[in-house]
Amino acid sequence: MPRYALLVEYDGTPYCGWQRQAQGQVTVQGRIEAALARLQADVPSIAAAGRTDSGVHATGQVAHCDLARAWEPARLMAALNAHLRPDPIAILAAAKVDDDFHARFSAIGRAYRFSILARAAPATLQRDAVWQVRRPLDLAAMQAAARHLIGQHDFTTFRAAQCQALSPIKTLDRLDISAEAVARGVIYHFDVAARSFLHHQVRSFVGTLERVGAGAWAPEDVRTALEARDRAACGPIAPPQGLCLTRVVYPSDPFSAASSDTSAGR
Amino acid sequence: MPRYALLVEYDGTPYCGWQRQAQGQVTVQGRIEAALARLQADVPSIAAAGRTDSGVHATGQVAHCDLARAWEPARLMAALNAHLRPDPIAILAAAKVDDDFHARFSAIGRAYRFSILARAAPATLQRDAVWQVRRPLDLAAMQAAARHLIGQHDFTTFRAAQCQALSPIKTLDRLDISAEAVARGVIYHFDVAARSFLHHQVRSFVGTLERVGAGAWAPEDVRTALEARDRAACGPIAPPQGLCLTRVVYPSDPFSAASSDTSAGR
Repeated sequence: MPRYALLVEYDGTPYCGWQRQAQGQVTVQGRIEAALARLQADVPSIAAAGRTDSGVHATGQVAHCDLARAWEPARLMAALNAHLRPDPIAILAAAKVDDDFHARFSAIGRAYRFSILARAAPATLQRDAVWQVRRPLDLAAMQAAARHLIGQHDFTTFRAAQCQALSPIKTLDRLDISAEAVARGVIYHFDVAARSFLHHQVRSFVGTLERVGAGAWAPEDVRTALEARDRAACGPIAPPQGLCLTRVVYPSDPFSAASSDTSAGR
Repeated sequence: MPRYALLVEYDGTPYCGWQRQAQGQVTVQGRIEAALARLQADVPSIAAAGRTDSGVHATGQVAHCDLARAWEPARLMAALNAHLRPDPIAILAAAKVDDDFHARFSAIGRAYRFSILARAAPATLQRDAVWQVRRPLDLAAMQAAARHLIGQHDFTTFRAAQCQALSPIKTLDRLDISAEAVARGVIYHFDVAARSFLHHQVRSFVGTLERVGAGAWAPEDVRTALEARDRAACGPIAPPQGLCLTRVVYPSDPFSAASSDTSAGR
């Protein structure tokens, strides 16, 4: 059975996360599998690089599936997008991959962006894509605190109770925070990258760093929390809608030759 | 009765435009007047700088209203935002203005942004804020065509049949087109500014320039269309959801001293 990789973008707002649920809740995986079921009789199960939580978005999720017959990748992409309509899920690219490619286990890097809108007035156009706070945050203090998290650490403090990872030790490659001016407010973008993440790790980072930005914590308190290796030492977990999975990295980019992007037409 | 100016942002998706309708359709004006009705018994009617169409957004709309009693502007803003919840309409700032200030007639400039997403895969997160086309557009050709529209012209070609302006002669100060890379596609931003616009003028410009970008029209065809002074010479009108009213300019900024932005707290 030929194996295909899919580059997937979605608005996570209407979904109970990526992963198919037993009780028939609507999930991104379930919707894509339903679209695949329109292409062949036996529905293949699909695996994804990151099992995003309910309300979390993606612009660079990667999944793979085994199909009964060979497809021209651009045709596969177009057929799936047609069957996904009007769901806010898009297959941005499709590519034939080797049988040993696995969207989750072959990945060597993942990048997420989390966005906080700081302003007195409520969010409107961006209400499903930001965590809103009312007051501006101290960017330099958050950046100073973030430096304590870079590198290899035991991240038990920033790990959800239900996390299934075998080890709490991870290496954080990047945690950059930038500020973008918007109408009467500021959006703070947290760009994080690592080989892999613990469950709720990014949202735990952001919820903790927001406390620093608000002045409730000193930057050094983040190092103390990290060194405590204790879930109770973590700040609040930031809400899901500010989070977006932006990129998954593989030893060689499965979509580098994909003829499915706009610049190549369709 | 003291007069207040309101800086208003909204997601136009769920509304039948700005202007209150006779038949009880939900409009932005109607929702703000309903919020004002929670503050005082007699509901004041409000006037806006730009009467945006159904589905059109705003990050910088300005309205004014006369209230029965004096309000501290930041308190007025907070009260209105509380009563507008959960509508995707936000009062970004409020300011006391002179009795002769009129949101529409005092305005000396308006700016809009229109966004086109060009990619093969459908829009997801931005589906309500872009006009989607499937293939990339020729940026340089669109920029060359746009130059024919700058300056003072009879814009009859780019005017809706129902336009109520007294004259079709307007001066277009700016029509800049830029390209932003997004996942497997490009967003083209059209930034336009003028003292005032005819009904559907921006969407008529964009629909016509898209034809140039797609290669169906030559840049010079836009000049020919302009000089025809004939609605029939216009390209298709671009759909409303790509359009956003970003700024209204007055001889002096009514919100310059507004204590309602995030940087000043609340």
